[in-house]
Amino acid sequence: MKLATLRTGDTTIAVRVDDDVCVEISGMADVGALLRHADWRSIAEAADGAVTPLDSVGPDDWDAPVLQPSKIVCVGLNYRNHILEMGRELPEYPTLFAKYPEALIGPNDPILVPEYASHALDWEGELAIVIGSTARRLSVDEAEGAIAGYSILNDVTMRDYQYRTPEWFQGKTLERSSPFGPVLVTGDEYLVDTELRTEVDGDVVQRTTTDDLVFDPATLVSYISQIFTLNPGDVIASGTPGGVGHARKPPRYLVDGSVLTTVIEGIGTMRNAVIVED
Amino acid sequence: MKLATLRTGDTTIAVRVDDDVCVEISGMADVGALLRHADWRSIAEAADGAVTPLDSVGPDDWDAPVLQPSKIVCVGLNYRNHILEMGRELPEYPTLFAKYPEALIGPNDPILVPEYASHALDWEGELAIVIGSTARRLSVDEAEGAIAGYSILNDVTMRDYQYRTPEWFQGKTLERSSPFGPVLVTGDEYLVDTELRTEVDGDVVQRTTTDDLVFDPATLVSYISQIFTLNPGDVIASGTPGGVGHARKPPRYLVDGSVLTTVIEGIGTMRNAVIVED
Repeated sequence: MKLATLRTGDTTIAVRVDDDVCVEISGMADVGALLRHADWRSIAEAADGAVTPLDSVGPDDWDAPVLQPSKIVCVGLNYRNHILEMGRELPEYPTLFAKYPEALIGPNDPILVPEYASHALDWEGELAIVIGSTARRLSVDEAEGAIAGYSILNDVTMRDYQYRTPEWFQGKTLERSSPFGPVLVTGDEYLVDTELRTEVDGDVVQRTTTDDLVFDPATLVSYISQIFTLNPGDVIASGTPGGVGHARKPPRYLVDGSVLTTVIEGIGTMRNAVIVED
Repeated sequence: MKLATLRTGDTTIAVRVDDDVCVEISGMADVGALLRHADWRSIAEAADGAVTPLDSVGPDDWDAPVLQPSKIVCVGLNYRNHILEMGRELPEYPTLFAKYPEALIGPNDPILVPEYASHALDWEGELAIVIGSTARRLSVDEAEGAIAGYSILNDVTMRDYQYRTPEWFQGKTLERSSPFGPVLVTGDEYLVDTELRTEVDGDVVQRTTTDDLVFDPATLVSYISQIFTLNPGDVIASGTPGGVGHARKPPRYLVDGSVLTTVIEGIGTMRNAVIVED
């Protein structure tokens, strides 16, 4: 099952995305509101609200599936091939940092960047894990059951801010910079060895299969849940593979007018224009 | 003016703390709810709800002033004397990282730590800045006006988790580990050169004046507000001075039964027992 949040005038509505239509899930303003119901899966399966043909949903009609996750936890250094090709050892523990919900935008929204934040703007295509039930001190097996499904997040990063102090955080949480969507695919339909791909102006810059993670989704949820409780709708951005712009010689960054495309086969495509504000 | 949040049975209420009484601010469940009103100051000044003598308020009656800040931003490496005594240069930019609201406890609550998280538990007494109005891309002068006031936060840290990966975050956001309170002192009454002091089992382990910050409160608010919007009730933990347990030879950590006391003269005292759970 695929779930999404659509914009409808001044408000939003959660929908089930079927083969060629979207079906409104009445009373649920976004997928986050849906996931706060313990029986979210049967509510979504039974939904019979207004039906919209998929080909009449415009790119700007899609919003982030969860509009205001209580937490977004990002993972660094998590793709095996990328770590090994850099000559590093595989890590014993996941590297974690935070991104605030204010960083999120819809899957086709422009990335609006003030001039001072635009000097080293980079891409990080990632598989996003969305929590479906409260996760506190769970085993890996239990954690699997706390995952609602999967989506895509581009952890767009200001490399200059990231590296100007010992902590990456300030480069990772620029307001309205991180596309998220277009849909959440429930765990039962998600293919773990699917392709993740990032393109900039049509050039493929990142490509991997999503089963190359050092710490897989359930392991991440279990590990994090030992430190703090994850709530329904919380998001874990599971890390990015090789191919970021900062590591190129010379570096390549996103600039005014760049088009960033992030794809995970079986989930969908996000397409975001970069606009540098005066 | 001093503001606080008191526990009353199953709920909480914001109060104005006068010389020897607390006056309830009707309709405001915590200081965070109060601060979401643009005229929070006049509402608090005019409050005439139920009055409780201060000496009948028990230690456990005090809750965190803001129960669920949308964001807690922590600052590292910010005390001048401590940086200089370590032989480091003063930083050009503030080091920032996040703590989730789930980490907060009231100013006299026990710090309940699971056994696996108790092996290198350390203290970091800090001046907390509380936001009073929306702060987005503010100058330093404007930022001053966006500060509601000041409180105390102990950024209790799991040093083993902090240093097991490149990012400190996972050592900084253990659920229910960070005391916050007991009151918010509004900016007009706060003395910038007051004493911050941390004690462990009665031993003074940290002592500084709070005007020794490399980046003062308004500078921090201005800098952060260039990256993302700060909302009323958001908290900035402005960094800790020298004297943490991890830097001692041999190191000294909090253990089951330790009593952690954090004081800022003119704001108040927090006293927290450490309990290691089986």
